[in-house]
Amino acid sequence: MHSNRSGRRRFLKHGAVLAALAAGTPDLAAGQSEVPDTPTPEAHPKGVLTYGERSRFVNSGRGFKVGISHMTYYTPLQDSAGIITPAPLHFMQAHFARLPEIDPEQHRLTIHGMVDRPLSFSLEDLKRLPSVSRVHYLECHGNSSYNDHISPRVDDPRVGLPVQSIYGLTSCSEWTGVPLSVLLKEVGLQKGASWLISEGADAEKWHYSLPLEKALDDVMVAYAQNGEPVRPEQGYPLRLLVPGFEAPYSVKWLSHIKVVDRPYMTRDENGNHTTVRADLGGKSRWYHWEMPQKSVITRPSAGLKLPGPGFYEITGLAWSGRGAVHRVEVSTDGGRSWKDAKLQAPVLRKAHTRFTLDWTWDGEEAVLQSRCTDERGEVQPSLAELNRHWDIISGPDHPEKKQRPFHVNAIQPWRVEKDGSVYDAMFS
Amino acid sequence: MHSNRSGRRRFLKHGAVLAALAAGTPDLAAGQSEVPDTPTPEAHPKGVLTYGERSRFVNSGRGFKVGISHMTYYTPLQDSAGIITPAPLHFMQAHFARLPEIDPEQHRLTIHGMVDRPLSFSLEDLKRLPSVSRVHYLECHGNSSYNDHISPRVDDPRVGLPVQSIYGLTSCSEWTGVPLSVLLKEVGLQKGASWLISEGADAEKWHYSLPLEKALDDVMVAYAQNGEPVRPEQGYPLRLLVPGFEAPYSVKWLSHIKVVDRPYMTRDENGNHTTVRADLGGKSRWYHWEMPQKSVITRPSAGLKLPGPGFYEITGLAWSGRGAVHRVEVSTDGGRSWKDAKLQAPVLRKAHTRFTLDWTWDGEEAVLQSRCTDERGEVQPSLAELNRHWDIISGPDHPEKKQRPFHVNAIQPWRVEKDGSVYDAMFS
Repeated sequence: MHSNRSGRRRFLKHGAVLAALAAGTPDLAAGQSEVPDTPTPEAHPKGVLTYGERSRFVNSGRGFKVGISHMTYYTPLQDSAGIITPAPLHFMQAHFARLPEIDPEQHRLTIHGMVDRPLSFSLEDLKRLPSVSRVHYLECHGNSSYNDHISPRVDDPRVGLPVQSIYGLTSCSEWTGVPLSVLLKEVGLQKGASWLISEGADAEKWHYSLPLEKALDDVMVAYAQNGEPVRPEQGYPLRLLVPGFEAPYSVKWLSHIKVVDRPYMTRDENGNHTTVRADLGGKSRWYHWEMPQKSVITRPSAGLKLPGPGFYEITGLAWSGRGAVHRVEVSTDGGRSWKDAKLQAPVLRKAHTRFTLDWTWDGEEAVLQSRCTDERGEVQPSLAELNRHWDIISGPDHPEKKQRPFHVNAIQPWRVEKDGSVYDAMFS
Repeated sequence: MHSNRSGRRRFLKHGAVLAALAAGTPDLAAGQSEVPDTPTPEAHPKGVLTYGERSRFVNSGRGFKVGISHMTYYTPLQDSAGIITPAPLHFMQAHFARLPEIDPEQHRLTIHGMVDRPLSFSLEDLKRLPSVSRVHYLECHGNSSYNDHISPRVDDPRVGLPVQSIYGLTSCSEWTGVPLSVLLKEVGLQKGASWLISEGADAEKWHYSLPLEKALDDVMVAYAQNGEPVRPEQGYPLRLLVPGFEAPYSVKWLSHIKVVDRPYMTRDENGNHTTVRADLGGKSRWYHWEMPQKSVITRPSAGLKLPGPGFYEITGLAWSGRGAVHRVEVSTDGGRSWKDAKLQAPVLRKAHTRFTLDWTWDGEEAVLQSRCTDERGEVQPSLAELNRHWDIISGPDHPEKKQRPFHVNAIQPWRVEKDGSVYDAMFS
């Protein structure tokens, strides 16, 4: 797992090159600044838009919750198509109201600790190094917790329809960056190194422990999302991208990586981010990082209304932090029978997978739900199955609505009533 | 090729359902309008952005040309990453200065002509039908014509760096829509039907002939691009998406498809869109629709400057209208030797493919170029090879710069000079 053995390829071979990199003077990607500033539509007599706009008839937007210490945006999944989430609609949660505004020319990523050669990289340094682009989803580990099913019949106009307000803390993008393994080879890992502490340049200095084994696997230091620089909300100019793990591992505004020999159990990893487990005798489990297999029907979903009997395509998204989605089944009769849904190709690992099923609605009450099986054979559980194995604290308002805030992946039923109205049927 | 034989699956089985669809009253996707209007950042005290923004340090934008009858935008390929082009940076060419502004509730797609049941579909009707999402590139058949190499050493500040101004009329998105074959089954093709004439709702009523064989293959009526409604520039609310063909076949603001028994050689298909060929004795070739194998290095490319010797990743894009990219080779010595570049997975058919190659620059003059081979074994030609087989009219300013406006896929050399400056070396 350590990279300081000889024979490994290194990309920065000479002290001189390192010095040039560290000086932050490269012009290679300065093309951006050589292109004239984006003129505003008003500035040009013919309405030139060097950065295009949506139709004025399109108003789909993120739902949001603004708290004292949290700012949360929800992806409008009911309007989603395919597997790519546009960057402006990606979910976001920050633990402060004001986003960091980072000048990329001043920003550095410093890798230090148990390494042979501590190094600082500018954004332009990183763009010279070998890159990788992959489509991956991110998901808040608190997505679709029981408490998000606030009321089965009322949607909050601020946060959007239920599929958005319950499930909207997951989004999927094509991310581009430098494999973290490349950077760790450059700095040279010392013997005994086994964990990393990654830290953001935000006011809180968000920091999180990451096992070295994962860091050397599929983690990247991302500078682009869907073909553009990573957005400020997503960590501009640099974000650690840790595929399949709880989103907080993907540290935004990444500024430091310290190589260490143990997890730090940092402030950000404490209480809020541990999971109480029945199968561990009520103990909390730390470093429960992999997100489980999951799926949800996005259309039809609660808050929408079917105009009448007839043909409908049922469509939704499935994903697993363990790898690829292997199968999605859909039931239109509350789970009595299941049919295999069609999966949109290509099915990518640790990415959203779009599924569809043809359905002809006969006008009677129907309960629609989907069930995902991932490449390891893990099957998405029902609410009852999940509760049986995992939870210990019952919530106040429903015997099955327990206070399980994290890693909730129960099958989601949507009930279609005779008038075509669709409701959340998880707890009713 | 005809779909009115019995036994074929149809999704709209009853006159009653068709009537309901035609009435344009479905509410299924009305969720959009049930979500409150996107508040402007100013409207909310805490700066809520339901539709996110770029960093103020990012100003990459499309180059543009505004003519009397043309409005053209170029994708800034020098800033591209991965294979997805963000919708606001997708290239665009319209033959009028003002884009149609279409109310989706009023818009209909009517399919008529040699059909059993002429039908009109609203946007919401289409969203009920079986959908498909695929990543495809579009390319103007005039992209990278010889005349775009205006001057090998000067870039036009309006249209951007050379790789943008020469090659920027290609972009790649995840498109979602209804397979055209599904709609043609609904209307029922009559005997003898062999071509379609598709028409837009723009002021010019852009219309183009499409062979039925292609229509029944991989064409879709697209309503979404990269997970959002298709942008006004790209044909909101509906665009015909004809993968691999010259972009004008992908008719925007699609309003009518007439099923006919021959190509119409419409106004939009005449002179401007035919190709004069030496191998046909100087005759023009009509319906030369498939775009050829092609590639270009996007970084380093002309207008950028390498800060000094050392390691660089060479990266670029390759594509073919015939299917998948099979191989990309890169030369750093002007074509004397070639190395296989790494292709970013997944390699998708009729889509941009990102390639990369590690390179250590020794500080001497170097000529970088890429060569694409597609799944049919077609190899991207050099300028000399292309001219030998295809062109008949020499341009005035360079013996090899012939007036070949369409389907130019010659290998693009970029010359790196000793000071790190990069220039267009196609004609110098």
